[in-house]
Amino acid sequence: MNVVANVYRGEKIESSHLGHIAVVNSEGKLLYSYGDPYRLTYARSSMKPLQAIPIIETGTADRYQLEPADLSLCCASHSGEPRHRSRAMWMLERAGQPEEVLQCGTHVPRDEESYKQLIREGKSLTPIYSNCSGKHSGMIATATHMGEDVATYHLPEHPVQQRILDVVEDLTGYPKEKIYMGTDGCGVPVHELPLANYAWAFAKLAKPEVISNPERQQAVIRVTDGMTSHPEMVGGNNRYCTDLMTAFQGRIVGKAGAESVYCLGDRQTGLGVAVKIEDGGPRAINLVVNEVLRQLGIGIDGPLNDLAEYTNPAITNMSGNVVGRIEAAFTLIAKDESLRA
Amino acid sequence: MNVVANVYRGEKIESSHLGHIAVVNSEGKLLYSYGDPYRLTYARSSMKPLQAIPIIETGTADRYQLEPADLSLCCASHSGEPRHRSRAMWMLERAGQPEEVLQCGTHVPRDEESYKQLIREGKSLTPIYSNCSGKHSGMIATATHMGEDVATYHLPEHPVQQRILDVVEDLTGYPKEKIYMGTDGCGVPVHELPLANYAWAFAKLAKPEVISNPERQQAVIRVTDGMTSHPEMVGGNNRYCTDLMTAFQGRIVGKAGAESVYCLGDRQTGLGVAVKIEDGGPRAINLVVNEVLRQLGIGIDGPLNDLAEYTNPAITNMSGNVVGRIEAAFTLIAKDESLRA
Repeated sequence: MNVVANVYRGEKIESSHLGHIAVVNSEGKLLYSYGDPYRLTYARSSMKPLQAIPIIETGTADRYQLEPADLSLCCASHSGEPRHRSRAMWMLERAGQPEEVLQCGTHVPRDEESYKQLIREGKSLTPIYSNCSGKHSGMIATATHMGEDVATYHLPEHPVQQRILDVVEDLTGYPKEKIYMGTDGCGVPVHELPLANYAWAFAKLAKPEVISNPERQQAVIRVTDGMTSHPEMVGGNNRYCTDLMTAFQGRIVGKAGAESVYCLGDRQTGLGVAVKIEDGGPRAINLVVNEVLRQLGIGIDGPLNDLAEYTNPAITNMSGNVVGRIEAAFTLIAKDESLRA
Repeated sequence: MNVVANVYRGEKIESSHLGHIAVVNSEGKLLYSYGDPYRLTYARSSMKPLQAIPIIETGTADRYQLEPADLSLCCASHSGEPRHRSRAMWMLERAGQPEEVLQCGTHVPRDEESYKQLIREGKSLTPIYSNCSGKHSGMIATATHMGEDVATYHLPEHPVQQRILDVVEDLTGYPKEKIYMGTDGCGVPVHELPLANYAWAFAKLAKPEVISNPERQQAVIRVTDGMTSHPEMVGGNNRYCTDLMTAFQGRIVGKAGAESVYCLGDRQTGLGVAVKIEDGGPRAINLVVNEVLRQLGIGIDGPLNDLAEYTNPAITNMSGNVVGRIEAAFTLIAKDESLRA
């Protein structure tokens, strides 16, 4: 049983989480794993950095003078804070598009104060509040720049999504004929690949010199530099992605995905890490990622201390008293194998 | 691997849930199981019907003229709708106690409209909004009636909690010396027992004639009749407990617990069922319970049809389009063994 974390209430295990972990280097070699590193997985929003690459490659970013913080927001599952919403609106304005073209749908934003303000003003949620509004704004800007149909940018056959599929195939090293596609929570295609291939893609994001196409290499650098120089755009206040990249000061590029996925690349070692919690619940993923880093010796000199609140989350009751805890419960297994084709 | 449900996105399994199931009759015989029917489990709020029994046995319910709907609310994890809050306040008033004595803490209620109204009025959450405010009001009324210290009613050593421990021991058939206690989300003691013993307790709730103590038998009948005659008090609008008991028209007594627990008793067959989803996430529990009922042949003549929205929940994206589904994936294993001591 590939348990990765146990949830204690008092001194007893109330619940537990299974998981899968792959650690891959930029040459596509699986170095460590746990559970099934080849589990076919939807990486969900963890793929946003890959989805942002065509914004550069098509010339969209230059045409609309997108800034590093904009590119970071295109990779975001943001909290809907004012700074996120205003920047997404600004991107749409640069492309001459109204908010209504966003196809991401609506949901209550994580930023409670933004939501409360909306209720106080008697207003309704709009798509700009969606955690994906940055990504969608980037897709819309790209379709606009390319003279493509804007209304259907989210559909699998649209050139915007086809360019993304090409990037996914290239960076994951997994043939697109074998990639099954579902629909993501925000309505765009979501790709299903072996977990280890996501780790390989993030190893390349961390070590772009292995990417032979110089234009793609430069696009990767612009996107990932955007994320690490503006981590506040990727998540927001008290968000793991933001705090992880802040703590590592440019060393790590990381992105969460729904259903409990995390992918990161370490620019110092060139390692890529991908984690999937089998049950899809959110509470164990961050502490499992921190534990992977600890076992790899990454950040044990300081950054992981800054992330202690994620490593040892307390279970509290409704009065705020600590009544339990969650603990990582796995040891990475050393491997040395080329990724299966 | 004791998978109980798979979560599909498109035609692929995105996530899966493990679980444990015990089906026990009122004589304490395990008839069906899946996973580990003896998994040591906190049943959390599934124990509220047992926690309510001393309200009758101490004479508290008669002293304060508590109605069946009040007793039902004492067993509730309610949504904080106006009808729930006003009834909890009324119980406190009958006992002459102010809202401030509630020790359950606060959380955002499930009833979105009640929360929005609070925000619009610039008010803060108070304990009456807690899903446990009915249970706590019952405990406070009991302590008041008995002349016991009211401020500490939630602590393990308080007579209110000691009486509950005696009921738990009696109805589960599990010796209290072996019961480990943690702290529940609302601050009161929570007991850890083998899953099958909870199923046994609910078999007794469903078939109280097996309870030898006539006063306890009558208390059980009053509590469970309260729940089945006022299921709207146990949960609220669009809540499984409420809809399950409504659909079965008095045949089933059921109660959910946090960390994905469900316990129910079927008054027709005298069977008790207890389910625990290993990861504690909420999304699979109701459909797993419906599938247990279906495999036992309970409600296949109609009531389960009324619960179809719980049996086949759709996964939708933020625009409301169906992009996946959750399916039960287990077959109960027939057993015929007396519960282990």
